[in-house]
Amino acid sequence: MILGAYIYILFELNFAVTVNGFPCKDAMAVTAEDFLLRGLDKAGDTSNMLGFVVTPASVMQLPGLNTLGISLVRLDFATPLGLNPPHTHPRATELLVVIEGTLLVGFITTNNTLISTKLEKGDVFVFPKGLVHFQQNIGSVNAVAISALSSQNPGTQQVAQTLFGASPPVDASVLAKAFQIDANLVQLLQNKFKFS
Amino acid sequence: MILGAYIYILFELNFAVTVNGFPCKDAMAVTAEDFLLRGLDKAGDTSNMLGFVVTPASVMQLPGLNTLGISLVRLDFATPLGLNPPHTHPRATELLVVIEGTLLVGFITTNNTLISTKLEKGDVFVFPKGLVHFQQNIGSVNAVAISALSSQNPGTQQVAQTLFGASPPVDASVLAKAFQIDANLVQLLQNKFKFS
Amino acid sequence: MILGAYIYILFELNFAVTVNGFPCKDAMAVTAEDFLLRGLDKAGDTSNMLGFVVTPASVMQLPGLNTLGISLVRLDFATPLGLNPPHTHPRATELLVVIEGTLLVGFITTNNTLISTKLEKGDVFVFPKGLVHFQQNIGSVNAVAISALSSQNPGTQQVAQTLFGASPPVDASVLAKAFQIDANLVQLLQNKFKFS
Amino acid sequence: MILGAYIYILFELNFAVTVNGFPCKDAMAVTAEDFLLRGLDKAGDTSNMLGFVVTPASVMQLPGLNTLGISLVRLDFATPLGLNPPHTHPRATELLVVIEGTLLVGFITTNNTLISTKLEKGDVFVFPKGLVHFQQNIGSVNAVAISALSSQNPGTQQVAQTLFGASPPVDASVLAKAFQIDANLVQLLQNKFKFS
Amino acid sequence: MILGAYIYILFELNFAVTVNGFPCKDAMAVTAEDFLLRGLDKAGDTSNMLGFVVTPASVMQLPGLNTLGISLVRLDFATPLGLNPPHTHPRATELLVVIEGTLLVGFITTNNTLISTKLEKGDVFVFPKGLVHFQQNIGSVNAVAISALSSQNPGTQQVAQTLFGASPPVDASVLAKAFQIDANLVQLLQNKFKFS
Amino acid sequence: MILGAYIYILFELNFAVTVNGFPCKDAMAVTAEDFLLRGLDKAGDTSNMLGFVVTPASVMQLPGLNTLGISLVRLDFATPLGLNPPHTHPRATELLVVIEGTLLVGFITTNNTLISTKLEKGDVFVFPKGLVHFQQNIGSVNAVAISALSSQNPGTQQVAQTLFGASPPVDASVLAKAFQIDANLVQLLQNKFKFS
Repeated sequence: MILGAYIYILFELNFAVTVNGFPCKDAMAVTAEDFLLRGLDKAGDTSNMLGFVVTPASVMQLPGLNTLGISLVRLDFATPLGLNPPHTHPRATELLVVIEGTLLVGFITTNNTLISTKLEKGDVFVFPKGLVHFQQNIGSVNAVAISALSSQNPGTQQVAQTLFGASPPVDASVLAKAFQIDANLVQLLQNKFKFS
Repeated sequence: MILGAYIYILFELNFAVTVNGFPCKDAMAVTAEDFLLRGLDKAGDTSNMLGFVVTPASVMQLPGLNTLGISLVRLDFATPLGLNPPHTHPRATELLVVIEGTLLVGFITTNNTLISTKLEKGDVFVFPKGLVHFQQNIGSVNAVAISALSSQNPGTQQVAQTLFGASPPVDASVLAKAFQIDANLVQLLQNKFKFS
Repeated sequence: MILGAYIYILFELNFAVTVNGFPCKDAMAVTAEDFLLRGLDKAGDTSNMLGFVVTPASVMQLPGLNTLGISLVRLDFATPLGLNPPHTHPRATELLVVIEGTLLVGFITTNNTLISTKLEKGDVFVFPKGLVHFQQNIGSVNAVAISALSSQNPGTQQVAQTLFGASPPVDASVLAKAFQIDANLVQLLQNKFKFS
Repeated sequence: MILGAYIYILFELNFAVTVNGFPCKDAMAVTAEDFLLRGLDKAGDTSNMLGFVVTPASVMQLPGLNTLGISLVRLDFATPLGLNPPHTHPRATELLVVIEGTLLVGFITTNNTLISTKLEKGDVFVFPKGLVHFQQNIGSVNAVAISALSSQNPGTQQVAQTLFGASPPVDASVLAKAFQIDANLVQLLQNKFKFS
Repeated sequence: MILGAYIYILFELNFAVTVNGFPCKDAMAVTAEDFLLRGLDKAGDTSNMLGFVVTPASVMQLPGLNTLGISLVRLDFATPLGLNPPHTHPRATELLVVIEGTLLVGFITTNNTLISTKLEKGDVFVFPKGLVHFQQNIGSVNAVAISALSSQNPGTQQVAQTLFGASPPVDASVLAKAFQIDANLVQLLQNKFKFS
Repeated sequence: MILGAYIYILFELNFAVTVNGFPCKDAMAVTAEDFLLRGLDKAGDTSNMLGFVVTPASVMQLPGLNTLGISLVRLDFATPLGLNPPHTHPRATELLVVIEGTLLVGFITTNNTLISTKLEKGDVFVFPKGLVHFQQNIGSVNAVAISALSSQNPGTQQVAQTLFGASPPVDASVLAKAFQIDANLVQLLQNKFKFS
């Protein structure tokens, strides 16, 4: 939630820190570089356990987005079954368009209803603000999507990693009771995330 | 996320549906009842698997909150170890004050850092907007808390139930890969939530 | 309205001042202390003319509330007739729950209609944003309430003190004409607030 | 606070009531009349006890302002000492420019500091959101001002009238304690506002 | 600015019109179709004078975007020199990513500084809220871009068409003086847009 | 869009730069001067090609407006035909009242419909957020208007100057295609704005 990193980027660029609603660089000093990020055509490296990677274009990469309330990401899904696992964006709605491949996507409402569908190239899908959602490559080729997010700094929480991979770890009795599992299984799950 | 229920409440009360930023009842017709909800001193029934229950005072119970961006809940935790399991509010920050008892509370940042502490009677804690958080009774008596939420309709997603208890169910291969578990364990977890 | 005090608190805590929408502390450095305030179970000292005191939990006491748009207060009312006198919160709606005792509460609409009721323990009442409102202990024991406010820095103006106790004083002719009273009575009222 | 009146104006004009953020009239049907209000050059009738009157141009008079967050008023002050008595706008900052005459203006901060000055023709003054403020004609001719307000429906509470002229009346013991006066004086003040 | 069209779409889909901040369909009735739009992989027809066409995915096409503050468009640019001519989005920032081809893009600041650059496949560029901007195909193949916009209903004004193609026409003397041209040239320009 | 100038004003006044939503000066140090601007009764100098000039009262001139979302301007129109040429405010709605004279005013909707009318002294007109609009003196005396704007820093883009007078210049082929004119005419128009 709290992103000190950007502060340093700002100073590095000689942005003057300033008040609410004012941009952080002298108008006379802005250049096209402040509004430009190259390379979203490059496939990210999906050689990980999920077969998935995200390449962001948010305010950390693109300082000109500050105060403007929007960002983009590129999503790469390996085959077979590359997965953007269930996660939330605490501060943003996501609007995804499939550039290549076939995705199974879904979000769960606060009524615990799964709203899910299969997307092909060119299909657009809405993941409303703050709700748990996922996307999985169910086609036979690598899949690529571009998503717009309604915040310059949307944040992401991958639910399984958040719960079982937090540091320090979430108390085992909390997880055991929440998932209706025993302490051994909690330990096993926490170990998986510790070493992944 | 989408709460049709309120629409009916509105009509029942003869509120006139109206435009953005305008309240939904004729100013001449409002009474104290529109701004009043009784009974938050009554302990909720915690005789469930979690030993926990929430009693809400949001726009569904209190129509006068419409457009005002705030609500309250009462939280009851049985002893021992009554648990408000890991969950998010997609549209709200939560600010909790302990009325009675001892709670272990925590939230996880988008960096996967657990921010956790023990609260006694009178302690106040912030759960920032959209982040996964939990509260557990770690004392020897029933615990009670009041939480303020920064939305008249904050919404809640209990993470374990959202993932393993959604209807229709989330695809087992998504859950297996996200939690690094096999399909049998996914099935077992889904069965627990199906019958709980 | 303008709260320089917080600026110093921020620097004391080594928060880095930063731009709109970004929190003011490096994510790596936040701890549970930034989100915690203890002691709201302690009764405030009501040995004053009003028999009333407020104990705040806003961004000045709880730096982690910054940018999150919510705060809490504890309200203590002595017996008999402890009074939170008519006042406004320029930047917030208030949502009150009675913890102990009996309160007469009310707000006045912009139509000059008084919306008022009697609250017992557990009752919740809405005071819409910016409207003049009050609460009075009409029971036989000390009363306690918790209120949520829809701003991290709601501000308060006690109307009588604002008008008759401002420094420098509001011009007597303004007050005389506004209240339809003579200059002597204005002087008398100003003296009361000067020495109170 | 709650303005049912506008609902009727809307229907009278055949506006279709619609959802959040969408204007209330078919784009094909809007005309210049929806965005136009004539007559703010006409002096209002100040033959009242205050020697003051306000002529509004808010969403009630000018339906095209809906969702746009701004409005205007014309203020007329008779001589001598016409007074816009201490009041608040629960939902707006006010930005005033003197068109004719000389005004004493002021607002009180939440620290009870009076910020006050004398304005001549052409002077502009800010009254921050929700704070108690006033304007008085201290010149020898009628004074006129135009004020911009940061809401299409700012609302107004004249403090003295709100407290002593509410219907039903505010409980006398509340007012007596708040103003440190006796019940007889409260009665006297309430009678003045009852018959004014 | 005012989009009556959506009202009809809403009713067609049997959405219940409702109050501020509440979605317009019963939670029990939403389906994946409400959040899905197919076909953004199809090239639009650029056989027009500009060699350019936009395919929108905003709240008019995708009702599930209501209240969520974001939308997408696909932009197709023919070769050679297909042009999205200078225009503004009155209610949105635009964040563009090039899917195919080479674009010259630019926006003009309120200081009249042109911020411009050449984009290749995979490059991302920010067009800040409300500013005049353009994109032109300067490569040898058709170009395609996806843009995210920070409003569910951003609106577009093509500047030349707005000025010279409005109906009824903007007064010739206004245009002549604004562009420092004579009435004949205004007439000539208006004729071009009338018949285009 | 980016206004470094204000940063310097702030420091000059010894404002402490601070975080989102907090004012930029210690509450103990504010004076009436921070909320006051004199001289909006003075006619601006209209001896320019347009016969028009704007005198602003925004956050750059009036630091007390920071975070308050509103500003004013005085508009002077010479006779005959003084023109505020077609322009947009990227971040504000404008609400104009005629103080003196007769104006032809208009805005163009995103449907390319001109909404236009003639205003006399005392008439009020709405120019919705971000839309192209203009005002012209069509009377026989100098005209004066006051406009309220729904931002403390609304920004302005004069469309003709933005397009033909930008520095560096907008590519001629962009302008030629957008206006359906040849390169010679583009050059001629650019020369006019270069030397004006």
